[in-house]
Amino acid sequence: MATTTREMKTATASIQSHPLDPLTAEEIVLAGQIVRQAKPQMNLVFNTITLQEPPKKQMLSYLGWDTTGPRVTEIDREALIIALERPSMKVFEGVISLSTEKVKSWTFVPDVQPILTMDDMFEVEELVLRDEKVQAECRELGITDMSQVFNDPWAIARHVNYPGRGKRLMQALMYMRTCEEDNQYAHPLDFVPIVDIGLMKVIGIERIKPRNSKFTRPTIPMEKHNFLPEFVGEENMRKDIKPIVIQQPQGVSFNIKGNEIDWQKWNMRISMNYREGLVIHNVSYQDGAEKRPLFYRMSLSEMVVPYADPHTPHYRKHAFDVGEYGLGLCTNGLTLGCDCLGSIYYFDATFNDHKGQAYNIPNAVCLHEEDHGILFKHTDYRNGRAHTVRGRRLVISQIVTVANYDYGLYYYFYQDGTFEYEVKATGELNTHVLAEDESPEGHGVIVAPQINAQYHQHFFTMRIDPMIDVDCHRVPYPTGHPNNAFGNGFYSETTMFRDTHEAQAIPSYDTSRVWKIFNENRLHPYTKSPVAWKVTSMHQAPLMAQDDSVVGQRAGFAKKTVWVTPYDEKQMFAGGFYCNQSDGSDGVEAWVKEKQDVSNTDVVLWFTFGITHLPRVEDFPVMPVEYCGFKMQPCNFFIANPALDIAPTNKKVNQSVLAKATPSNESSCCSSTKL
Amino acid sequence: MATTTREMKTATASIQSHPLDPLTAEEIVLAGQIVRQAKPQMNLVFNTITLQEPPKKQMLSYLGWDTTGPRVTEIDREALIIALERPSMKVFEGVISLSTEKVKSWTFVPDVQPILTMDDMFEVEELVLRDEKVQAECRELGITDMSQVFNDPWAIARHVNYPGRGKRLMQALMYMRTCEEDNQYAHPLDFVPIVDIGLMKVIGIERIKPRNSKFTRPTIPMEKHNFLPEFVGEENMRKDIKPIVIQQPQGVSFNIKGNEIDWQKWNMRISMNYREGLVIHNVSYQDGAEKRPLFYRMSLSEMVVPYADPHTPHYRKHAFDVGEYGLGLCTNGLTLGCDCLGSIYYFDATFNDHKGQAYNIPNAVCLHEEDHGILFKHTDYRNGRAHTVRGRRLVISQIVTVANYDYGLYYYFYQDGTFEYEVKATGELNTHVLAEDESPEGHGVIVAPQINAQYHQHFFTMRIDPMIDVDCHRVPYPTGHPNNAFGNGFYSETTMFRDTHEAQAIPSYDTSRVWKIFNENRLHPYTKSPVAWKVTSMHQAPLMAQDDSVVGQRAGFAKKTVWVTPYDEKQMFAGGFYCNQSDGSDGVEAWVKEKQDVSNTDVVLWFTFGITHLPRVEDFPVMPVEYCGFKMQPCNFFIANPALDIAPTNKKVNQSVLAKATPSNESSCCSSTKL
Repeated sequence: MATTTREMKTATASIQSHPLDPLTAEEIVLAGQIVRQAKPQMNLVFNTITLQEPPKKQMLSYLGWDTTGPRVTEIDREALIIALERPSMKVFEGVISLSTEKVKSWTFVPDVQPILTMDDMFEVEELVLRDEKVQAECRELGITDMSQVFNDPWAIARHVNYPGRGKRLMQALMYMRTCEEDNQYAHPLDFVPIVDIGLMKVIGIERIKPRNSKFTRPTIPMEKHNFLPEFVGEENMRKDIKPIVIQQPQGVSFNIKGNEIDWQKWNMRISMNYREGLVIHNVSYQDGAEKRPLFYRMSLSEMVVPYADPHTPHYRKHAFDVGEYGLGLCTNGLTLGCDCLGSIYYFDATFNDHKGQAYNIPNAVCLHEEDHGILFKHTDYRNGRAHTVRGRRLVISQIVTVANYDYGLYYYFYQDGTFEYEVKATGELNTHVLAEDESPEGHGVIVAPQINAQYHQHFFTMRIDPMIDVDCHRVPYPTGHPNNAFGNGFYSETTMFRDTHEAQAIPSYDTSRVWKIFNENRLHPYTKSPVAWKVTSMHQAPLMAQDDSVVGQRAGFAKKTVWVTPYDEKQMFAGGFYCNQSDGSDGVEAWVKEKQDVSNTDVVLWFTFGITHLPRVEDFPVMPVEYCGFKMQPCNFFIANPALDIAPTNKKVNQSVLAKATPSNESSCCSSTKL
Repeated sequence: MATTTREMKTATASIQSHPLDPLTAEEIVLAGQIVRQAKPQMNLVFNTITLQEPPKKQMLSYLGWDTTGPRVTEIDREALIIALERPSMKVFEGVISLSTEKVKSWTFVPDVQPILTMDDMFEVEELVLRDEKVQAECRELGITDMSQVFNDPWAIARHVNYPGRGKRLMQALMYMRTCEEDNQYAHPLDFVPIVDIGLMKVIGIERIKPRNSKFTRPTIPMEKHNFLPEFVGEENMRKDIKPIVIQQPQGVSFNIKGNEIDWQKWNMRISMNYREGLVIHNVSYQDGAEKRPLFYRMSLSEMVVPYADPHTPHYRKHAFDVGEYGLGLCTNGLTLGCDCLGSIYYFDATFNDHKGQAYNIPNAVCLHEEDHGILFKHTDYRNGRAHTVRGRRLVISQIVTVANYDYGLYYYFYQDGTFEYEVKATGELNTHVLAEDESPEGHGVIVAPQINAQYHQHFFTMRIDPMIDVDCHRVPYPTGHPNNAFGNGFYSETTMFRDTHEAQAIPSYDTSRVWKIFNENRLHPYTKSPVAWKVTSMHQAPLMAQDDSVVGQRAGFAKKTVWVTPYDEKQMFAGGFYCNQSDGSDGVEAWVKEKQDVSNTDVVLWFTFGITHLPRVEDFPVMPVEYCGFKMQPCNFFIANPALDIAPTNKKVNQSVLAKATPSNESSCCSSTKL
């Protein structure tokens, strides 16, 4: 097993400061030890050892937001363990008390498959390469040196020959490298081994047959397409990029205490888990003397990347990168001055391996401030008096690698109360080999000879748990008001979602639709309507797959932009808890089938955004960032622009200078207009 | 006339370096003098003196892009003059040769009204305040000191009592200030004087009557709502914002020669005119040995901000900030370290006043580079080998103030060939006074007691003139491919716009629609289809006003996202050349009425984006930036990611450091996970 990115941990004592802090290395190891001692007869694979987050009700009291009962001052640390028993591969869920060192519950869970771990990935890649039938396939393609062959093990999704979740399966997408560090996605192979992880063997191999081609088998495209500097060559690099240096000579403007972040009027807490990766907890904004609670918890609860090609085996490619692979497990250790520019604060992350040991990802979360251009400006044109205030944002980010793709995941907090979430999709396109005369048939683009980058979509579903009782409303603006003599009139209409059936919405261009979360118990003094937060998304796409397709069944969450459910602590993941090999019986679409009241109760907003990605040749061999995301803003929540107390900056403070660009020559216009 | 922001110019000799350079101060003065000498009997108001841009055909030869004829090496400098004759206010258009110092043409143009100038604004504000009926209205409201009264003169749009364009009219929106520098939009008055600029007098006053109110007249809201630092108070400012310093110790990466900008693989030229403000000319990108022409000319050709309230006099509020006021005329002189951070290069701008004198706006255009986060990244999860390349963008920007609103207008060029245009809308909301018991009736929001900020929309129409023969296509992706057993299949369909009737399109969520400009004469070697640029916009809204409303007639361009017209050098402005008091007979909607071929010919793309703005209380008294824009990207144009030749940066080069935030205390989790 590769351990290059891991630092192994041993158990040493430490004290927890907050109930929402992730498990420490010691706690992970301890939890595993407690289970092993309690179940000495079981040969367990530790799939997941993670914090069992305290119930929201307890936490609201602990935080002082809920004062209806006696204040909760201590909360037991608990670990949630998902384990597989070898050789049966039966799945068990355990809750372990770390303070009493007891197994609180231990339950066999039938007919599910837990998340795929990095250990699973590494083990499957190795066993595939050792398999004789795989080696025979390679030989037939002309490869004799198996050290040139690589594979990306993918979740199986659902396989026509192996339906259901009885077997723990993966499919291996095959590639070769012509030399060390060569880009394997330029040399895709035409077959897909199917692996049973329980049996630890290849149980089938599928050839991808050329369509409408005179060839029975494509040759491997051998042309190299690389982006690493050793291939591009120092001599070919652009020489005219001068450094940009971003510094904070007086230090940063944020304060850190453990995992709590204080930045100007914002306060919040972060955590990192195996699955959602970065989670933002307990967000508040200081409004004068009042600390106003906003969000109890925000995370990327699920995502799915369905591919367009309907033929075998491509129909199985719809990666759930949260539920199948885990944004925590796939997270990168970040590099100063490279992933992150300026004055950077890092948080590490700690996860478990199959043996119940802990490993550390250093610099897993990057925290920094950025200048964000003008926050607001107004000039009185009469006298030229200009007032310009520059904006800042606090950026909390991680970067994950899920096989070929890499995603930067950015939480932004702005000084005016705006919160934004942005996904930067980069990395490499998943590629498929075509025969020399074969076409992608409208489902992909040829990014280089014989290399088909298939069309696909990216959907991201955020789970947003407001700190206070909420409802979700939409604001559409139809025309045709009766009192509209000059024809310009339009008005806003707010429709309240009363139940889980009404609370399913998609965008509307015709009505400039936005959504609001509001608190009916607090009216704005000026507008006399409930204080609210507005949710807008610039990146919306419909799920192109059929409703009853495999991905349509499994990724119901991607069918709507907005879903609202009554709060239920079991409902954390839009694609279901056991997402791997799932059938759609768990997840937001299943939860809302039965009509439930969402008015005047504690609710959760599930917000989906995404893009339809038709790859470009320019996305190959490595893809410039594609952006998508959404934004939330206070909307008649404060009594004025909350950033009025930000002083203008000036060149003395920020040391801006006039650029000494090549000066305009004597005969140029520029010098004359600058007389 | 206020001249605080102007520097007057006298005529001195200078040499022009390029035919697309704006007129110098000397040329402006010279053009006026030539006309005065040629027409000594006329009492002329010089409305506009600007460069008459050379014909595209000539320029393409001059630039060397068109080699079909003998190379044009010299192009005559010509000025376009629009003048009004006093007292008739007849409009004349003249073309002046600056090299021969001759009037080449001089034409009376009936039934039009040219743009409103800053001189018009200042003169109208003064005459309104001197008017006795206005003073009487103010006295009735309790104002005796007219120095407290201010007004924003607006274009009339169209007035029910004065239809047509026979009179040159403005309407004055009235406010008061309770002290110097007080925010007048917190104290709106309830009447609107109508001004005839030919007669130089107030010809009518309209009261805005309270609706469904027991009051016949609202009192003036006297509560102050200010944002200037002297009102907020030093003691109330946030003290915890540490400086961010952005420096380029080795200088900037761009080169400037006159108005030509060279930045990495991009080359372009800028100019600034009274109307469109910043214009980008002759854009190319270096592709290996080949300099590939992309765009001949790009500018914001028109914009409109229609308001939602259908009652008199609000129905007239739909500002065309390009055609009625001019983005050049309204441009701000920018401040280093405040509007622009880092190493900044400025260009000045020069315009004419009514007398034919020239004045200078120093620092009218800001040019700088910005770090733009990761451009691309991929990690091999097997060995942790990460390759991260940070991106840069070149930013060319101006900021305009049009009465209450301020717009930052940003052209971004990215290293991977992406071009983006972004509008940052800020400044102050246009406000309207309500009686104490009055409601905005669904057409606005009460941002403070009695202050109604009406709903409105912002539409921006770019004129994009590609350098080469182009057509526009849409790419919709319906589902239901026959060969779709697993239901995931989707494909892209490209529809070619053949004529001006087909080439009218709006967004489609259902099909993830994007548009492409492509060159049928050049096929991509891999995809075998024409090389193309993709146009996407994240900010789309329908024009809410009725098609046959006043604004619907005048702002036809805002009804569609995409229009394509055959190239016609007379068709520069989406809302027509004489936009002020226009009737819709000129402009893109009028031009496409007759069906014209747009396939295989030189075409222009008119691209509209915008937002529906329901003001928030948080937008008052000054509005945090609202963003909108669009993006263009090479789409199967290059043979790979064109930014592969960018080397990774590192902390030695960019001097990034670990932040010394308040360290986590002994008992925190953070220290233990960082063991």
